[in-house]
Amino acid sequence: MSEDTPGRVSLVGSGPGDPDLLTVKARRLLEDADVVLHDKLPGPAILDLIPEDRREDVGKRAGGERTSQEYTNDRLVELAREGKHVVRLKGGDPFVFGRGGEEAEHLAASGVPFEVVPGVTSAVAGPAVAGIPVTHRDHASSVTFVTGHEDPTKPESAVDWGALAATGGTLVVLMGVGKLPEYTRELREAGLSDDTPVALVERATWPDQRVAVGTLADIVDVRDREGISPPAITVVGEVAGTRERLLDFLANGRGADDEVFGA
Amino acid sequence: MSEDTPGRVSLVGSGPGDPDLLTVKARRLLEDADVVLHDKLPGPAILDLIPEDRREDVGKRAGGERTSQEYTNDRLVELAREGKHVVRLKGGDPFVFGRGGEEAEHLAASGVPFEVVPGVTSAVAGPAVAGIPVTHRDHASSVTFVTGHEDPTKPESAVDWGALAATGGTLVVLMGVGKLPEYTRELREAGLSDDTPVALVERATWPDQRVAVGTLADIVDVRDREGISPPAITVVGEVAGTRERLLDFLANGRGADDEVFGA
Repeated sequence: MSEDTPGRVSLVGSGPGDPDLLTVKARRLLEDADVVLHDKLPGPAILDLIPEDRREDVGKRAGGERTSQEYTNDRLVELAREGKHVVRLKGGDPFVFGRGGEEAEHLAASGVPFEVVPGVTSAVAGPAVAGIPVTHRDHASSVTFVTGHEDPTKPESAVDWGALAATGGTLVVLMGVGKLPEYTRELREAGLSDDTPVALVERATWPDQRVAVGTLADIVDVRDREGISPPAITVVGEVAGTRERLLDFLANGRGADDEVFGA
Repeated sequence: MSEDTPGRVSLVGSGPGDPDLLTVKARRLLEDADVVLHDKLPGPAILDLIPEDRREDVGKRAGGERTSQEYTNDRLVELAREGKHVVRLKGGDPFVFGRGGEEAEHLAASGVPFEVVPGVTSAVAGPAVAGIPVTHRDHASSVTFVTGHEDPTKPESAVDWGALAATGGTLVVLMGVGKLPEYTRELREAGLSDDTPVALVERATWPDQRVAVGTLADIVDVRDREGISPPAITVVGEVAGTRERLLDFLANGRGADDEVFGA
């Protein structure tokens, strides 16, 4: 594509955190890439698979400040222009609230060949391992993913919670712990019943995964009582009630101490 | 959990069809399971990985008739009660329009231990390999998955296309080829602009993947001209316009003859 042998970038999803939920291709790329740019979201079990001398943490700068997206964009191009095969590792899927789209556009505009390696999105896997199917013939004909943690540089929320409530489908809120009081209020004001089941899945698929359940009316209290903290996913909708019917026979549904399937 | 050594069931997502997008765990389970119940959706490349004598096709009965969900449910329980480790392999993710929720409920009600192994959903991966991020900071704060092919036994459509249009986010319609004329009309009537970009991704990640693009106003003509047929995914929203800016540098974006990354 250019003079010399050009480098290239693989935008790779890590899945929710369990190394077993890496794709076959992601697993191979973590071994083969010249350098892996990552932040903390893939989680320790996956980051530990990458040889120390080929990891580059772009999640934090030295001073503890967040690395700007511009720095990451430029670093990807710089390394590729050195002829390297660069993996940009993202928690979940690169294109589900991962800013992978921006990175892809920057690479294309810079003339750097790239590929996208989709991952298991936490928005589906988080609920699933808690016993919650995001769609269900009897309960939900659609599922919507939104983020509770919007870009703080945006002037106002682009999310229309009223319209989301009106879909009648499942809502999955990523990074949804902090703003839980705000959007549960908006959803109730938009007409969703106080009794609507809600589940919080903290550190989905990690060894210390936790699940807390409640309703739109009491989930904020449940969060506070259980001390649920980020990273966590919120599931709003009738499907969240499925968990109760599955739990006794579901492996890993309770967290790390689950023994249904043995060790 | 019961007398003797009980069997168990793993509800496993195959991802969109490229064996490289199986999860590490799914790949292992296809080798280790006693029997794999599947239909055609995982695609030939993945089904070929399963030893012939351990495959059981529940997608069709002998006469060509579709197997009923009840038959599959009962067969899973029957095999597990023989003490087998059964894999139920689903295209994409088991809980995204896969009827995995119903199977899980049946297993739990029958006292059969099970686990869910999430997969890469075609609803994200299909658009991604076509150069379309389903969310994007500038274009889409939410993404909704719906199915274009609802259960024919339902009395009426449970999907409120007007409400979906009002979310302002990306819409991904799975199994969305046949009903394309109906729902594009509903979305236009609900106020989405005729110019809204739309992409169709046929056999996403398969060697013969094809992508066709248009707008809400002309995508039905595009479908007919290009002869796009199932299995295919429809993406509606501004993000579909991203493809144009990425295509020249995106590996596999064009389909099997893409050579950006070499063979």
